[in-house]
Amino acid sequence: MNPRLTIALDAMGGDHAPGMVIAGADIARERYPKATFLLFGDQSRLEPLLDRRQALRAVSTIEHTTDVVANDAKPSQALRSGRRSSMRLAIEAVANNQANVVISAGNTGALMAMAKLVLKTLPGIHRPAIATFFPTQRGESVMLDLGANAECTADNLVQFALMGSVFARTVLGLLEPTVGLLNIGSEEVKGNDSLRTAASRLRATPMPMHFKGFIEGNDIAAGTVDVVVTDGFTGNVALKTAEGTAKLYTEFLRRTFRASFMAKLGYLLARSAFKKLRMRTDPRRYNGAMLLGLGGVCVKSHGGTDALGFANAVCVAIDLVVNGFNERIKDEMHRLDTARSALSEPGVVAV
Amino acid sequence: MNPRLTIALDAMGGDHAPGMVIAGADIARERYPKATFLLFGDQSRLEPLLDRRQALRAVSTIEHTTDVVANDAKPSQALRSGRRSSMRLAIEAVANNQANVVISAGNTGALMAMAKLVLKTLPGIHRPAIATFFPTQRGESVMLDLGANAECTADNLVQFALMGSVFARTVLGLLEPTVGLLNIGSEEVKGNDSLRTAASRLRATPMPMHFKGFIEGNDIAAGTVDVVVTDGFTGNVALKTAEGTAKLYTEFLRRTFRASFMAKLGYLLARSAFKKLRMRTDPRRYNGAMLLGLGGVCVKSHGGTDALGFANAVCVAIDLVVNGFNERIKDEMHRLDTARSALSEPGVVAV
Repeated sequence: MNPRLTIALDAMGGDHAPGMVIAGADIARERYPKATFLLFGDQSRLEPLLDRRQALRAVSTIEHTTDVVANDAKPSQALRSGRRSSMRLAIEAVANNQANVVISAGNTGALMAMAKLVLKTLPGIHRPAIATFFPTQRGESVMLDLGANAECTADNLVQFALMGSVFARTVLGLLEPTVGLLNIGSEEVKGNDSLRTAASRLRATPMPMHFKGFIEGNDIAAGTVDVVVTDGFTGNVALKTAEGTAKLYTEFLRRTFRASFMAKLGYLLARSAFKKLRMRTDPRRYNGAMLLGLGGVCVKSHGGTDALGFANAVCVAIDLVVNGFNERIKDEMHRLDTARSALSEPGVVAV
Repeated sequence: MNPRLTIALDAMGGDHAPGMVIAGADIARERYPKATFLLFGDQSRLEPLLDRRQALRAVSTIEHTTDVVANDAKPSQALRSGRRSSMRLAIEAVANNQANVVISAGNTGALMAMAKLVLKTLPGIHRPAIATFFPTQRGESVMLDLGANAECTADNLVQFALMGSVFARTVLGLLEPTVGLLNIGSEEVKGNDSLRTAASRLRATPMPMHFKGFIEGNDIAAGTVDVVVTDGFTGNVALKTAEGTAKLYTEFLRRTFRASFMAKLGYLLARSAFKKLRMRTDPRRYNGAMLLGLGGVCVKSHGGTDALGFANAVCVAIDLVVNGFNERIKDEMHRLDTARSALSEPGVVAV
């Protein structure tokens, strides 16, 4: 492993790549002056961008390739025909220990498929999951899975809970994060078999987290738990529903302040307070979906983000590496296995 | 059927019953002076409430019972032991043609189970669904199912699409509502078998709606379609996630206006504009979850609502009856069957 932290970037992924990627890398460089960058992409397009950023150039190496994974490529198609793509080569840099972490703003499905193939999953983790953090009434929480696995077994959910709690400890700095399984109202028969089995396992297994049982959709934004665990279908719908609702309320607010002369004047007075609110809820602050459970740190930036958003995704990735995220997951999985073996001893009912 | 519209009310259901129910009925009476009310509940508690509302008393009959379905009763338990409950008797009034519609703010699971047992489902509808409408960027939309059926077949989803579009035409007054199936991002393999089969059936079957295919979570608040169709698990999570996010933004707004003296002054100036926003997004406006697909009109009010919210639920129920909602669903189901038979003729591939 490189003594300095090395960041592999898919320089060609994202709606505004490569300009946005290079500008984002430059912001990340200012925050982490000890990092070096491997830029995977078209040299003829990257060189002119670096010419204008000499400080970044000094810590960057271009790894030339002209292949790019298309935004609408199916994962299987990207796997077959994208072996020389900027995305694939950037991921391989992590597998080959040339880089500590990879960030791409490209095609999510392709990134997940390639990362799984190249980096493999961590021992004991059957399926990787996509996680993100978001603002709540009580601060910030983490949710996973957000779309990598539409259907999940109880084992998958238990592993997501473990990875999510390690994430909350690593990135949010919580000592004993609270974890909840997303389910529907207590008046109904609660959820499917996977959910019920996962809940009973999480209750029975000693882990460094506080399992709070089932939570409901409204608990997500309330911040009832630090880690929201769910299957990829439900998590994807919930996250996008929350984003859509946030947009709706921002639009309502805009209309309200334009409704009358007095309201406009009111906005002028409250403007600096609203500036703080906008910063607090800025989607770029929460840019960066983490692919957890892989044998290397891989972060997906939103495809439509700008340089600041991309830099935030890079910084989350660096946080994960610096705090030994994957080593901690391996430790937890080992402890979990030990605890389970103990529980499976003859005479003790395994859960 | 009664020549005047008769409303059966579970007078004992809800956190603030029976006071809230009686006060709500009085508001509904003002809006629909031709309605009469059957109040199911404890006479000794209802009489004093009616004493203070002589106009309501004049159009009301108390049907005495002291049994009440507990808020935490399981559906099966309520079915067994709640035969003389205010909820059960109110539903039976619709089945016996004593009333045109029933409204309860009690236990949702019990209401659904009892309504299914007593009112049965409409011909061709395998499962009833819970629907509500909500504010969007473009006006108002309908979503179903919200929790009656955690897992759904393709047939269920197609029937929900049909019922939802009839609902949008009846209550929202739309001529040809747009319908979307809630799914996850286009980058993933899209959804499960039920979703894909339902989509191909909705594309192939001629119905008085415009099927727009798959939509995502962010499309809900955007108002991309008039009718959002989904299984009860996803719908329940999505609705509650949207509610939680709306609450979060309201709280952010409150904090923002309290952040400084200038911001407080700004609020005073914009106050009347914000009053309109509050009215627009008042949860009481959207109170009333409709149990669609039953052989009688049954509406669930939110348990924690007040008199105004309960009155809104009563008015939605009246709207459904006045506009012949169930007759329209029967017509559509008949047309759908005819269209399907035509498609199933030899030589034509059935969908």
